[in-house]
Amino acid sequence: MIDIATRVWNHTWKIDPIVRSLLDTDFYKLLMCQSVYRNKPDVRVTFQLINRAKHIRLAELIDEGELREQLDHIRTLRLSRGESTWLRGNTFYGKRQMFSPAFMEWFENLTLPPYHLEKRDGQFQLTFEGLWPEVMLWEIPALAVIMELRSRAVLKGMGRFELQVLYARAMTRVWEKGERLRRIEGLRLADFGTRRRHGYLWQDWCVQAMIEALGDKFTGTSNCLIAKKRDLEAIGTNAHELPMVYAALADSDEELARAPYQVLEEWQEEHEGNLRVILPDTFGTKEFLQRAPDWLTQWTGIRIDSGDPIENAEAAIRWWKAHGQDPREKLLIFSDGLDVEEMAQLQARFAGRVKITFGWGTLLTNDFGGLVEGDALAPFSLVCKAVEANGRPTVKLSDNPEKAMGPKGEVERYKRVFGVGEQVGREVRV
Amino acid sequence: MIDIATRVWNHTWKIDPIVRSLLDTDFYKLLMCQSVYRNKPDVRVTFQLINRAKHIRLAELIDEGELREQLDHIRTLRLSRGESTWLRGNTFYGKRQMFSPAFMEWFENLTLPPYHLEKRDGQFQLTFEGLWPEVMLWEIPALAVIMELRSRAVLKGMGRFELQVLYARAMTRVWEKGERLRRIEGLRLADFGTRRRHGYLWQDWCVQAMIEALGDKFTGTSNCLIAKKRDLEAIGTNAHELPMVYAALADSDEELARAPYQVLEEWQEEHEGNLRVILPDTFGTKEFLQRAPDWLTQWTGIRIDSGDPIENAEAAIRWWKAHGQDPREKLLIFSDGLDVEEMAQLQARFAGRVKITFGWGTLLTNDFGGLVEGDALAPFSLVCKAVEANGRPTVKLSDNPEKAMGPKGEVERYKRVFGVGEQVGREVRV
Repeated sequence: MIDIATRVWNHTWKIDPIVRSLLDTDFYKLLMCQSVYRNKPDVRVTFQLINRAKHIRLAELIDEGELREQLDHIRTLRLSRGESTWLRGNTFYGKRQMFSPAFMEWFENLTLPPYHLEKRDGQFQLTFEGLWPEVMLWEIPALAVIMELRSRAVLKGMGRFELQVLYARAMTRVWEKGERLRRIEGLRLADFGTRRRHGYLWQDWCVQAMIEALGDKFTGTSNCLIAKKRDLEAIGTNAHELPMVYAALADSDEELARAPYQVLEEWQEEHEGNLRVILPDTFGTKEFLQRAPDWLTQWTGIRIDSGDPIENAEAAIRWWKAHGQDPREKLLIFSDGLDVEEMAQLQARFAGRVKITFGWGTLLTNDFGGLVEGDALAPFSLVCKAVEANGRPTVKLSDNPEKAMGPKGEVERYKRVFGVGEQVGREVRV
Repeated sequence: MIDIATRVWNHTWKIDPIVRSLLDTDFYKLLMCQSVYRNKPDVRVTFQLINRAKHIRLAELIDEGELREQLDHIRTLRLSRGESTWLRGNTFYGKRQMFSPAFMEWFENLTLPPYHLEKRDGQFQLTFEGLWPEVMLWEIPALAVIMELRSRAVLKGMGRFELQVLYARAMTRVWEKGERLRRIEGLRLADFGTRRRHGYLWQDWCVQAMIEALGDKFTGTSNCLIAKKRDLEAIGTNAHELPMVYAALADSDEELARAPYQVLEEWQEEHEGNLRVILPDTFGTKEFLQRAPDWLTQWTGIRIDSGDPIENAEAAIRWWKAHGQDPREKLLIFSDGLDVEEMAQLQARFAGRVKITFGWGTLLTNDFGGLVEGDALAPFSLVCKAVEANGRPTVKLSDNPEKAMGPKGEVERYKRVFGVGEQVGREVRV
């Protein structure tokens, strides 16, 4: 029986919206947003879409009108009562009322600020300017929209059964990854794949498949909407955006050198336990740890998001040991371009020496590599970053110079201030 | 939006019926049924389920109560008005009104006769006794029910996503077969997979996938319900059952020797063109052709359903040539245990020498081999055959002694009467 009302209702949508909820974002954006709302509510920032894969000419693939419609739709979204209730009432990392009443009231009244879009040289110049706590919430939906419009563009014109078999192949691939991961003793991983997902429904499918395939080994998802819908733990802590903006706001080299630690000092006032996770690579992991204040060694863990993961993990373990900490009580979170093989290797190397967990991103939620003609669905590296704060450019050094950002002169200054020397480049796949 | 009425309606079904229409059967059963209804309406026959794969203990896998419910449901089915209209109004092989008003009236009032079911030694003893035109219509639904109950039994207890991935893998396999077949120049094939299908919905999916994958190369399906639903040509001619029953009714060796030709003499009065297809292997292809009357060489084609297909096809070509017929005007239909490789080989060998087409059965609609633990969904050879006619046993010799049937003494007598000597056995996979 056809549900006529549903069919007619579907026809009343002008578009098929990709992002349908302000909760369709990564949990750490909300944690950081609350922190920014409390500590830096008046800072003005610019976020910008950056396609690291220049050969993928997004503006030739994706219709600008369709992109505008999707972005305009996001600007109509408001936090619903049920979504607000979920945020207010939920327990995150065992803690209730993670979000303050003041922040929740602000969030309930939020609509996302305007965007600026033009085409240049086959790419979209997409920027968001305004107050930091508002603009920062564009990052994930903007990426998700571009990624899904790209998928739709590639899939247009395929036959109905050809499409079904494409998804059959992709499902089989994801499931087989799950089967391999299930056999890894002691593994723990979460979905970190929102930003580069093939599509919303696909991410939701992958998460559900992992729930069934991995059981307790699957600890949750970074996506708040999917966490809510599938009754999972929402996972995440903080990102490069905090030290990058704090650093840009610094008025002197001395302030600059202090900025990454100041961020964490403020974070420490707000969060405890599993939320006290250091992301040390913004301006070089080795140098960050060398200069870190003693109280940081008390923190629960370190997230490793660039560079050689084994090298950085060994450095973290050495750092803890050197400060009298037992690494077996500490947590390492790996989150950079992981797939099954990398997780298996890291698990084999570090299990028993330190607690470890994985944030599995693009290669969970967007591994369509090789599945269509010309590999036109292969994952690629797209980011949306804070590029300016109060009129000053931001800088990221990373442990991989391929991921570095910022004007040349500023990059040199940061390298000097943070004592970062020669770095080894690694190909950025995803 | 959930369609509440549909959900509630579904709950009103006592079971999930496998066969839901009297058209869910092979087209040739209806053609043969009309012929039997006209020529032998009062013959009493017994059909019996025969599981050639003894190691598959069906009665231990399938619940007897569930089987009874499914069979009982089939006995409640009547031809609907729309189904009758389709049969009355359709063009089959370019001919209108293939079914006479008298036959249609009889069919519209038909319900299937009772069945007899018991368990013995891990197998079901399932028999159908009564008038030939009624009993014969049990064959396909009985097989389809057993095959699908076996699938359901094996799949019980699997997880939701595990199941989805199982079907994803099976879909990918079918699609990849389609992709290979699409590249074979001049190929023509039809679905003959009703009787051994994994399930009804699965057969329907496979047929639709082949429509998309093969385009004009896919000529139709033997399944009347799916042909009706998907607007395809219903395909089929006649089967072993006719000569087997005619032979059993013969009162002397002379009558027995004539029986296979008498069947076709009557068929010739009813059908022309593409429906004049000889199935020569019931009592040995070579011997059948040697003794065939001259008028049979005028027929359109020969179906090759056992033995070595190349050998039998060459024999058919030689036979036509020896009788002054141009094989390039003749049709060979291959229908025995085919898969992609066999079709590719036969096509390569015979294209240009003779018209050829393929009836692709079990390995289209039930290729789940290797996809579950213990290969518990591997296809196997299940048939439902006429074993008695007016109290006398039937016999089949086939070109493969592994497919022979009948009491030993009778088999010897038939071999003598039809002049069949030593035969080479071939493993019966499906």
